[in-house]
Amino acid sequence: MDKNAPIGIFDSGVGGMTVAREVMRQIPDERIVYFGDTARVPYGSKSSSTILRYTRQIIKFLMTKNVKAIVVACNTVSALALEEVKQEIDIPIIGVVKPGAFVACNSTRNGKIGVIGTEATIRSDVYSKFIHEINPELQTVGKACPLFVPLVEEGLWDDPITEEIARRYLSSMLEEGIDTLIMGCTHYPLIRKLLKRTVGEGVNLVNPAYETAVQMRRVLEWEDLMREEHSEKAEDQYEFYVSDFPERFQNFADSILTFQIHAPSQVNIEEY
Amino acid sequence: MDKNAPIGIFDSGVGGMTVAREVMRQIPDERIVYFGDTARVPYGSKSSSTILRYTRQIIKFLMTKNVKAIVVACNTVSALALEEVKQEIDIPIIGVVKPGAFVACNSTRNGKIGVIGTEATIRSDVYSKFIHEINPELQTVGKACPLFVPLVEEGLWDDPITEEIARRYLSSMLEEGIDTLIMGCTHYPLIRKLLKRTVGEGVNLVNPAYETAVQMRRVLEWEDLMREEHSEKAEDQYEFYVSDFPERFQNFADSILTFQIHAPSQVNIEEY
Repeated sequence: MDKNAPIGIFDSGVGGMTVAREVMRQIPDERIVYFGDTARVPYGSKSSSTILRYTRQIIKFLMTKNVKAIVVACNTVSALALEEVKQEIDIPIIGVVKPGAFVACNSTRNGKIGVIGTEATIRSDVYSKFIHEINPELQTVGKACPLFVPLVEEGLWDDPITEEIARRYLSSMLEEGIDTLIMGCTHYPLIRKLLKRTVGEGVNLVNPAYETAVQMRRVLEWEDLMREEHSEKAEDQYEFYVSDFPERFQNFADSILTFQIHAPSQVNIEEY
Repeated sequence: MDKNAPIGIFDSGVGGMTVAREVMRQIPDERIVYFGDTARVPYGSKSSSTILRYTRQIIKFLMTKNVKAIVVACNTVSALALEEVKQEIDIPIIGVVKPGAFVACNSTRNGKIGVIGTEATIRSDVYSKFIHEINPELQTVGKACPLFVPLVEEGLWDDPITEEIARRYLSSMLEEGIDTLIMGCTHYPLIRKLLKRTVGEGVNLVNPAYETAVQMRRVLEWEDLMREEHSEKAEDQYEFYVSDFPERFQNFADSILTFQIHAPSQVNIEEY
């Protein structure tokens, strides 16, 4: 395996860029090929069989880019398809759910953990399963928040409407006394401030992106796959592919990164 | 052409059922094959090339069901892909935009028409084009309302949050003095009451579904394609296909129709 090969990172759309950003920060020498399935976004309201089919197509595409490892930046895919596709490929692949569950278990003091995410992620109950594998005594309470993604995409990151929706979604888990809340969707860190106001100082917000990048680094070290060349100009080190609207993706990426990315290429993902 | 063949009706998801319902009411003897692309919904934030590709796949699928005519129940597809696919098939096909524009032109008294719809529909400016073909003196003002679809799907049909969003979306066109508002997305008739409260008694709401069904009837009569057999039991006369989650579609259909539909079949639409 070529140590200088890129890491593949993918998501149902733009949200996974919050994970890619963390990988860029923590393992700055690594090359990255990012794919965002912007033509078929969102995944969160879809069935597991459909999500599995889409995931297989994306992995097939990333393989054509000779990636040495894959980060599933999408919570929904990590929850519903990761265990199955892991059996089908022979390079390391990690998701965001296990790292998120791990951080939450280390963070809670009273043993009550809240999880918010898409319908599909919450229905899968995968966060609870991983949390209970680590510590069966912990309590979890999940809540699907389907309006957060469209509100974030509409730009209402700090708006009274988003705050009112957040209050409704979170009130019952706050009443149950959670002290830790996993942001189980890559869009949610973009409304982190508003969520913090809603849950109050006593509740710790967990963003799985940080720990996911830590784990990717460990896996590369363990498998002796760390890149040996040094990082070049950021725009040359990172390649971006999307299934629709390259311009919109570029605007979003430029708004959350500290450098301008090269124009993303459009891919007909259904052909894979 | 077999007069007893079904009419094909399709939409990006469940919303087109508000159009199908109107066709069932106005031409009750006709058989219908409905397809909802629930795996790739929503279309409203996608590019015209992607929407055109999806539309061609769906028409290919409907052709395997030997439909005698097609209703494009989706505003986004009607706006972005209809003119192109019309050239490619030899059965009658109509959309919802032209009928909606026609009704609005007949309804306005002061010549100021508002149009609300998805990002893609509003960006296409197709409603304005049709309205100006009918009467170049009319003024139109469009506004994309991307949050309405997720709010409707979340069930907030009569909620203060949806009302606040509606006020924000509609305030500037109300200030401009529109007296007619086209609901240019099949989800919007489901929040008709709330929209009516927001725009006030002086503004007429146009639902393109009614006029679309009128036009389909006229086309069938003109082409001598009206069905000659009489309607059977509703559940046997109508077939439903979706690309994801048959159960969820069935629940929605049962909630807006007066009869229970047969279980929808799932289709892998990417294979067409």
